[in-house]
Amino acid sequence: MIARYSRDEMVEAWSLESKFQCMQDVEVAVALTQAELKIIPKTAAISIQKKSRFSVKRIAEIEKETKHDVIAFVSNLAENVGPAGRYIHFGLTSSDVLDTAMSLNIRQAHKVLEKTLNKMNTSLKKVVRQHKQTWCSGRTHGMHAEPTTFGLKMAGHLAEFQRCCERYKLAYKNTQIGKLSGAVGTYSAQSVSVEKKVCQKLKLKPEVIATQVVPRDRHADLIYALGMLGCFLERLAVELRHLQRTELQEVTEGFSKGQKGSSAMPHKKNPISAENLTGVARMLRSYVIPAMENIALWHERDISHSSVERVVFPDAFILADYGLERMSRVLDGLYVNKEKMKENMDISGGQLFSSHVLLELVKKGLSREEAYKLVQKVSHGMKKGQHLREELLKHKETCTYFSKKQLDTLFSGKAHAKSIEAVIQRVLRK
Amino acid sequence: MIARYSRDEMVEAWSLESKFQCMQDVEVAVALTQAELKIIPKTAAISIQKKSRFSVKRIAEIEKETKHDVIAFVSNLAENVGPAGRYIHFGLTSSDVLDTAMSLNIRQAHKVLEKTLNKMNTSLKKVVRQHKQTWCSGRTHGMHAEPTTFGLKMAGHLAEFQRCCERYKLAYKNTQIGKLSGAVGTYSAQSVSVEKKVCQKLKLKPEVIATQVVPRDRHADLIYALGMLGCFLERLAVELRHLQRTELQEVTEGFSKGQKGSSAMPHKKNPISAENLTGVARMLRSYVIPAMENIALWHERDISHSSVERVVFPDAFILADYGLERMSRVLDGLYVNKEKMKENMDISGGQLFSSHVLLELVKKGLSREEAYKLVQKVSHGMKKGQHLREELLKHKETCTYFSKKQLDTLFSGKAHAKSIEAVIQRVLRK
Amino acid sequence: MIARYSRDEMVEAWSLESKFQCMQDVEVAVALTQAELKIIPKTAAISIQKKSRFSVKRIAEIEKETKHDVIAFVSNLAENVGPAGRYIHFGLTSSDVLDTAMSLNIRQAHKVLEKTLNKMNTSLKKVVRQHKQTWCSGRTHGMHAEPTTFGLKMAGHLAEFQRCCERYKLAYKNTQIGKLSGAVGTYSAQSVSVEKKVCQKLKLKPEVIATQVVPRDRHADLIYALGMLGCFLERLAVELRHLQRTELQEVTEGFSKGQKGSSAMPHKKNPISAENLTGVARMLRSYVIPAMENIALWHERDISHSSVERVVFPDAFILADYGLERMSRVLDGLYVNKEKMKENMDISGGQLFSSHVLLELVKKGLSREEAYKLVQKVSHGMKKGQHLREELLKHKETCTYFSKKQLDTLFSGKAHAKSIEAVIQRVLRK
Amino acid sequence: MIARYSRDEMVEAWSLESKFQCMQDVEVAVALTQAELKIIPKTAAISIQKKSRFSVKRIAEIEKETKHDVIAFVSNLAENVGPAGRYIHFGLTSSDVLDTAMSLNIRQAHKVLEKTLNKMNTSLKKVVRQHKQTWCSGRTHGMHAEPTTFGLKMAGHLAEFQRCCERYKLAYKNTQIGKLSGAVGTYSAQSVSVEKKVCQKLKLKPEVIATQVVPRDRHADLIYALGMLGCFLERLAVELRHLQRTELQEVTEGFSKGQKGSSAMPHKKNPISAENLTGVARMLRSYVIPAMENIALWHERDISHSSVERVVFPDAFILADYGLERMSRVLDGLYVNKEKMKENMDISGGQLFSSHVLLELVKKGLSREEAYKLVQKVSHGMKKGQHLREELLKHKETCTYFSKKQLDTLFSGKAHAKSIEAVIQRVLRK
Repeated sequence: MIARYSRDEMVEAWSLESKFQCMQDVEVAVALTQAELKIIPKTAAISIQKKSRFSVKRIAEIEKETKHDVIAFVSNLAENVGPAGRYIHFGLTSSDVLDTAMSLNIRQAHKVLEKTLNKMNTSLKKVVRQHKQTWCSGRTHGMHAEPTTFGLKMAGHLAEFQRCCERYKLAYKNTQIGKLSGAVGTYSAQSVSVEKKVCQKLKLKPEVIATQVVPRDRHADLIYALGMLGCFLERLAVELRHLQRTELQEVTEGFSKGQKGSSAMPHKKNPISAENLTGVARMLRSYVIPAMENIALWHERDISHSSVERVVFPDAFILADYGLERMSRVLDGLYVNKEKMKENMDISGGQLFSSHVLLELVKKGLSREEAYKLVQKVSHGMKKGQHLREELLKHKETCTYFSKKQLDTLFSGKAHAKSIEAVIQRVLRK
Repeated sequence: MIARYSRDEMVEAWSLESKFQCMQDVEVAVALTQAELKIIPKTAAISIQKKSRFSVKRIAEIEKETKHDVIAFVSNLAENVGPAGRYIHFGLTSSDVLDTAMSLNIRQAHKVLEKTLNKMNTSLKKVVRQHKQTWCSGRTHGMHAEPTTFGLKMAGHLAEFQRCCERYKLAYKNTQIGKLSGAVGTYSAQSVSVEKKVCQKLKLKPEVIATQVVPRDRHADLIYALGMLGCFLERLAVELRHLQRTELQEVTEGFSKGQKGSSAMPHKKNPISAENLTGVARMLRSYVIPAMENIALWHERDISHSSVERVVFPDAFILADYGLERMSRVLDGLYVNKEKMKENMDISGGQLFSSHVLLELVKKGLSREEAYKLVQKVSHGMKKGQHLREELLKHKETCTYFSKKQLDTLFSGKAHAKSIEAVIQRVLRK
Repeated sequence: MIARYSRDEMVEAWSLESKFQCMQDVEVAVALTQAELKIIPKTAAISIQKKSRFSVKRIAEIEKETKHDVIAFVSNLAENVGPAGRYIHFGLTSSDVLDTAMSLNIRQAHKVLEKTLNKMNTSLKKVVRQHKQTWCSGRTHGMHAEPTTFGLKMAGHLAEFQRCCERYKLAYKNTQIGKLSGAVGTYSAQSVSVEKKVCQKLKLKPEVIATQVVPRDRHADLIYALGMLGCFLERLAVELRHLQRTELQEVTEGFSKGQKGSSAMPHKKNPISAENLTGVARMLRSYVIPAMENIALWHERDISHSSVERVVFPDAFILADYGLERMSRVLDGLYVNKEKMKENMDISGGQLFSSHVLLELVKKGLSREEAYKLVQKVSHGMKKGQHLREELLKHKETCTYFSKKQLDTLFSGKAHAKSIEAVIQRVLRK
Repeated sequence: MIARYSRDEMVEAWSLESKFQCMQDVEVAVALTQAELKIIPKTAAISIQKKSRFSVKRIAEIEKETKHDVIAFVSNLAENVGPAGRYIHFGLTSSDVLDTAMSLNIRQAHKVLEKTLNKMNTSLKKVVRQHKQTWCSGRTHGMHAEPTTFGLKMAGHLAEFQRCCERYKLAYKNTQIGKLSGAVGTYSAQSVSVEKKVCQKLKLKPEVIATQVVPRDRHADLIYALGMLGCFLERLAVELRHLQRTELQEVTEGFSKGQKGSSAMPHKKNPISAENLTGVARMLRSYVIPAMENIALWHERDISHSSVERVVFPDAFILADYGLERMSRVLDGLYVNKEKMKENMDISGGQLFSSHVLLELVKKGLSREEAYKLVQKVSHGMKKGQHLREELLKHKETCTYFSKKQLDTLFSGKAHAKSIEAVIQRVLRK
């Protein structure tokens, strides 16, 4: 039902074809290993490797009778392999295959997502570089605070994105786990060395201690990491939505020829991508709770996690991939209105610099308390169109502390500019 | 991605076909009403009614250019209607159509779910009736507490289900809302009476105060109600899972011929439906938070709710429908092992009746404190194979209070049986 | 830990004193009823009624030994009552008292919250009435859409609040439940009539079918209703935060003398209440999931819900009460800057009226498509400082459709004003 | 409101005293650094270091007027320091102090939690060591699957706990951040080197790119890590609850002298700690969503995260600490009934070994399909009291494959035992 918000490559990564292919890869790796260890005949393993193939349709047919998907899958492989087929799945329980294959399936999805993450990284860095010195209002509580640059804003999002990537990659790595320890994790039907060798073949690490399954805290971490990518998207989307407001107009989402903003109001250019992605973030976040609820399986496992995972894994990966790709396009096509940014900085009549006036007064010997009250009084007394610089000069008390020249320097923004470049380099270097 | 957990009828209710059909119904109702009120020519309205039709494919084509789905839809209708097409969507903003159509779309889904709810009601009532007097251990904290009947257990689930249905129906009713008040809810382009008449035609109630959209608390209520149906499923599923444990074996999920329980362990008959539904419940619950987050749209609306709703509405309805239908089949095919229930009651050596012994001792003049200590002492001192009734007779203190006959009556379960029938009738009558 | 965000009256409602008082009320009502039904001696019941009292400290002492809070409580009552004390808690299991007392405890909290709800209702209605005709920009996607009034905005919030109150009151009503059906809900130790009479005394309804406890879907509904009051607060808080932005300045939260907005920037007047309440809403929403997870207790109950409820119930009530009271004060002290609202409407150069121009062109015979393209072209071509009205007159095509007088009427806002009064009355009447 | 579920040391870590102490530490470190860098007079810094002190009560008084907690705090310090007080908070914005102090405050809580984590580690390892060879039923889907040992079960929980600790420690490390970059993160009023030196003094790392605040994804990670400790508790608690069921009785939570299990049923010994902790886990999990919602602050920050954090941080730490400590006591006092475990293994009549019979048949040349059907047939045909070993010998087909001796070996559990020791060492070594 999220077809609208998906990209083909990621949908394929989570297709039944892809899932069964991963399962086949596991079965083949097991057979080859068992042959190496002389558990099954070498010729059987070669047959299994060469002749294994499956049909989604045929598996569905068999499953109708057995009501067990892994058995249906193994039977389908076996009928294609012929006599050697009886050595498929030898000494395995379903979860050995399913969970090890799940790790491979996650890898498929990871490969797609990795490209999207790289794309986002490029898009963000480009915007940061381009706008290092694009000055605009810094705002706290939605109110003008102090000047900043659009590049620094974006650098903050980039830094968050870099943390997101680290978190995601660690979580991903921790799901690259193989598990062949059998029905309750005792290796009763398979030796530890089979697992070890199979894992080497598949580039996985053996599970430390499994129950019947790979413990689900690993999977929760991954879904959380995807949820946090959603939170990254949300904070960036909210920023862009704010800056696009009619009253700010500091940025505009790309608006292609022929596009319409509203069926009733022809003048509209709406931040629909950013809004769409805000909703996508809500969904990504929502998957974290069921993924965490999946951990406390009963005893050596119950299968309640499965229905959750069949929804949450594809959907979280698909939405994260879609969201990141769409946002990177938004950034690539973003129109940044420098003029308007400059203009908006003036709206608050120089109040963006009030903290510097305060500091200067303290340097000149006033107590913090006194200085604060003084600047607050002048600021709150300002009328529309007035500018703090001038009002400070007019005020009977503040005028004794400042010359016009001193104030010009204070209000020039130089103090704010000095560290920007260095700060931004912290994330560009990475 | 939840294809596995869906039934066709509900999937169709949420198809694009179905959505556009609802939108067409709204556009036609608006045109007819506007003709009645002499806002547009009567002939135009008749053309719109007769010739309106759409093609999902064609809409997608147009949307590629306009990047606005409602405009694409209206254009497609208009090109099929011909010249009168320009009166389609007259004085409407997209959300007038989308939100009113959403109400109709919910109605489609409701009609499917209603049947499933009825099915569940029938299944539950049947089990309750059948097992009103099927005695088994009541358990608190997983420990034997006092005797109860399987019918009473199920009657408790039925009572919860009845509350779920009431909650759902109220929430559903509160989404049956029409909204034609325009871009910001001021009826600037459409009179209040158009909305009123259109709503009558479509059997909806006009929104009290809309922004651009129907307020999303209505939709959150519905998703919550579906989430609570999930919680109902979960409690029932957990009960059935417990009773199926190897050590209890009081019930068994239907096990069809040819079905396999485990790929490794041929002896297994697993409660897979109940476990599957436990996971489904987690998903249903998880949709509540994003639905609640959807409420605080900016000003007269932003569109962030839309991406959430495109996932949450179909998925919550599909999973609720699937889950309830599957559970009703589980109940229909449930094997209730009365023998095993009786057997299990004896495991705790009559301790199921300890509270009655306590009460009787108080009646005989002991303080509650004394009586409690006495019975606890005898109970906790019991060895395997011993029975509380006999131990009370053997104990030097308790034997002074009871005759064998009195104890036989106390341990007969008669006290427990007396109200069961009446209590169960409370929910069967409904 | 939420001491900062609480009001004394509500904190008291959830104190241990209050809880034990509710429990005492239940025990006394049970004793009186049992005397009426001749189950215990009348004199005992009278003693219990007259002499029952408890000490939180003493109960804690006893609990240290028994590790069971209800038993500790009953022992404390009994030692104060004297010999008749042994008839306290006669035939009851802990949950009979705890759950029935919980209903009474909720009632205590409800009485406090009800006053806060009334206060909020008054505050909202006052703002609605005052600003019915205070015109401002309606905004969708953060962009100017069409004119509306601040009163209508607030009326939308009032309508949502009225639905919140209905939802809450229904949920509250459904928790006013008594339950004396014993250890597993079979009335094995107490007749149905005791429960019925006790419930009448306490103004509660007997539970339809209980397990050991009142089913927790009832409690989830209440927590959800409080969560939805949070969502109401959030949407309103977000609106007020937006309108307070430096670039809008359409409203200001009351700013008392001596208050400081920022420790560094003396000019700041921040929407801190609205922001604080946005966070409070997040907390209120978060309690819904654990309350829903509490439903699926094992068999006839486990006690896992208890630790959740000891946090969630007080905290949700305290935060809802605090949030509503604080928001009602924000509304009472809200400064609405009508001048600024008017000024802001002009920022978009008449584009607020573009939908009306579109409609007029359709009335004049253009197809919707043509009209849309035409108005979009003129709108998107506008430069800073230009006004749509004038541009339409200057444009070679649109000037053929409109006279200056017609455009003046179109841009007067009269169309938007006509229904406002009636619409607002829909919620004021309630 | 969670007073009941807290330990003093952790409550103190989150007291106002503790918070203000952390803030004072920051202010002092800043003053000393600014003196070193000759920004303020050295004598002033020394005065600030020596005379700084605060009173929670006095701060509250000042806050009543200023309605700004940091300003109130600074004023209180200043009035105690005297004239040099005006150099306190020099060039800082509130968030510089608050967020840097937050990191120190988290460190306080961390020190307490670390001890509890160590305690849990010790308790778990002890149980693992003690029960490495305590054989019991492994159960999947609540059904007997294959034999395992109680030590291996616990080793799985230990492995999960070790991952929890790593996750938590990484998240903790990532919150050890200082931030003095001013109102919007531009270092406009403070040089980068002040931040660097202050961070060295406080053993923190400077934030890479801050807005006004330290980005909240760092804090979300920590709350998530605490939530995952909750999930660890939940899985373990659920295991213990299952094993304590009347029908299993494989373990018992410590039951101290004088303790009572039920007010009505004197025989009860309930798993109340494990159940309580299951609820605690729900709460811990619930804090993750608001912590994630806290990330998308507006522009350079709004203060909506603050009300969430004032609840979530103390409560999550307090509940995690309480839960872990209580669980470690449960483990320390856990009674493991080896006899009962052995007894229960027999309940399923040797079916715990069915997978081994299957494998053996495949080794003997049957296809997997044939072998499966054969064993399933014998298993499902078994009557109460029968044992799979004997039935296989009796069955006309299976008896041709096995000698009694072979079956004795198969059913001896030797295959299951061989890897247990090695597997368990994987986590004990850590």
